[in-house]
Amino acid sequence: MTDLAVTNRESLPGLDDVRDAAARIAAHVRVTPVLDSRELDARVGARLHFKCEHLQHGGAFKYRGASHAVWSLDDASAARGVVTHSSGNHGRAVALAAAKRGIPAHVVIPEGAVRSKVAAIEAAGARVYRCAPTQAAREAETERVRAGTGAQLVHPYADPRIIAGQGTVALELLRQVPSLDALLVPVGGGGLAAGCAVAARALRPGLRLYGAEPAGADDTARSLRAGERVTDVLPQTICDGLRATVGAPNFAILQAHGVKVLTVTDTQVLEAMRLLWSELRQVVEPSSATVLAVVMAYPEEFAGQDIGLVLTGGNVDLDDLPFA
Amino acid sequence: MTDLAVTNRESLPGLDDVRDAAARIAAHVRVTPVLDSRELDARVGARLHFKCEHLQHGGAFKYRGASHAVWSLDDASAARGVVTHSSGNHGRAVALAAAKRGIPAHVVIPEGAVRSKVAAIEAAGARVYRCAPTQAAREAETERVRAGTGAQLVHPYADPRIIAGQGTVALELLRQVPSLDALLVPVGGGGLAAGCAVAARALRPGLRLYGAEPAGADDTARSLRAGERVTDVLPQTICDGLRATVGAPNFAILQAHGVKVLTVTDTQVLEAMRLLWSELRQVVEPSSATVLAVVMAYPEEFAGQDIGLVLTGGNVDLDDLPFA
Repeated sequence: MTDLAVTNRESLPGLDDVRDAAARIAAHVRVTPVLDSRELDARVGARLHFKCEHLQHGGAFKYRGASHAVWSLDDASAARGVVTHSSGNHGRAVALAAAKRGIPAHVVIPEGAVRSKVAAIEAAGARVYRCAPTQAAREAETERVRAGTGAQLVHPYADPRIIAGQGTVALELLRQVPSLDALLVPVGGGGLAAGCAVAARALRPGLRLYGAEPAGADDTARSLRAGERVTDVLPQTICDGLRATVGAPNFAILQAHGVKVLTVTDTQVLEAMRLLWSELRQVVEPSSATVLAVVMAYPEEFAGQDIGLVLTGGNVDLDDLPFA
Repeated sequence: MTDLAVTNRESLPGLDDVRDAAARIAAHVRVTPVLDSRELDARVGARLHFKCEHLQHGGAFKYRGASHAVWSLDDASAARGVVTHSSGNHGRAVALAAAKRGIPAHVVIPEGAVRSKVAAIEAAGARVYRCAPTQAAREAETERVRAGTGAQLVHPYADPRIIAGQGTVALELLRQVPSLDALLVPVGGGGLAAGCAVAARALRPGLRLYGAEPAGADDTARSLRAGERVTDVLPQTICDGLRATVGAPNFAILQAHGVKVLTVTDTQVLEAMRLLWSELRQVVEPSSATVLAVVMAYPEEFAGQDIGLVLTGGNVDLDDLPFA
């Protein structure tokens, strides 16, 4: 499965795929804790359950999908390694998962990526390639490396193995907090959002599903309004993990399962990021803080309910916090 | 029980008291998660299980003992309120517990206390009194307030209710991680250390018990060597939560249960504090970091074992981190 444009419905992952992924990665991933804060609950008038994927190996949920993809390969394919393009957490996750399986990892990184994330990818043992910060340059360089090495492409989000792997977040959270009324996750390329939608909709048909998107990278919200993928949004946001354009299979899943995507400004994200520190005691990436920002910006959607919120990553530099 | 000098053995708390405390506070305190890090484990050559009491209500384990003391009072005593002296976390915990029960709290705070901690005590609704930063001034002002108000004294550590309440940390951790070989907690006045020693020794007689103390406030290590309380140490350490002199009942318990206290320098504490951020993704107080610093400073004591380490508090200002 190296085709990025998987849109035919029968190839989209379902609950069984998410369950298979959970079984395959159980020995590798961490069961992350769920934290809450009376102070935050009082402030927003709802009960917030934060799924702490920033405490996952590699500091982000991405290790779930990457582990699933890497451990799904047969030995002969695996031996040729894996290749991906990523500005950060997915690249690190693929590098870590490949290192654990003992196979080569190649990561194409666009210029402008967060320095500490690039360093982490290199520290995990991956071979790094730089390219211009456009989607076209990323894909061209990735294809060049793939053709030259025979490595398997592990796309950051438009890949059923990745979607199923990320969906294990919802599987786990619904076991930890069965009482949820709504589930709210950040949306970038849509790997996590699609995987969680697949799992949650099948397990709990009445659960309300939400995505949080930066107003400066709102291609998914626009796509859902337009009824088709809008791919010409030029992202401008501090949420470096959410700048990707929603993938085709991801969009199809979000649309099919009625996921509602709400947007927040960078200012709202920074306020939420600071509150997550002062009240929840967790330092997370701007991308992670979008979910709390959405709850605060749209109280009418969430008041009085039990909300599951996924904190997706914690790879931010304490010496360079955007809100300090 | 307002006498600070409880040293007769029959009044010292036992496992049953810790269990009673756990039952009494169950509805009020948070079951805190246990976190670990493959990177830290590899670095120290042991399996470290961090009990996250910095995620307790009020940001410190102190809420356990304070809740136990406050909810142990009969209604008539409770109505007159509670009084304590504290430079920070205990004062905040007493204020929060009293507010939850709806009774007055009076907190005597020595000059030089961390500003954000004083603000938190006031925000929790306590009446605050300032005094000189000496043990004598603290006790004199506390006695003055107690006599004037009829409030019950809730001593920060030399009180069987407090010791039993803090001991619930060990009770909970041993349930979460039954495989522990050793338990390591910071030692200030010794409330947590004594409570955990009581519970752990009774439940798991073979468990090795350790205390971590700053070299600049090593009165407990000296006391254990001398075989009697050494009370003339002038504390000089960044670990603001560990400057108190070990209490008389606390010392008696640590001595009786063979707790080994090891010391670390402030430099070692700062390095551990930074590692807890970069590898465990948790920002904690310097006092909390003493436990990791001890594991790193005394590898011969801990290599290859399962170690429980209590992170006691997280009330530090992100804008003013000592290691940044």
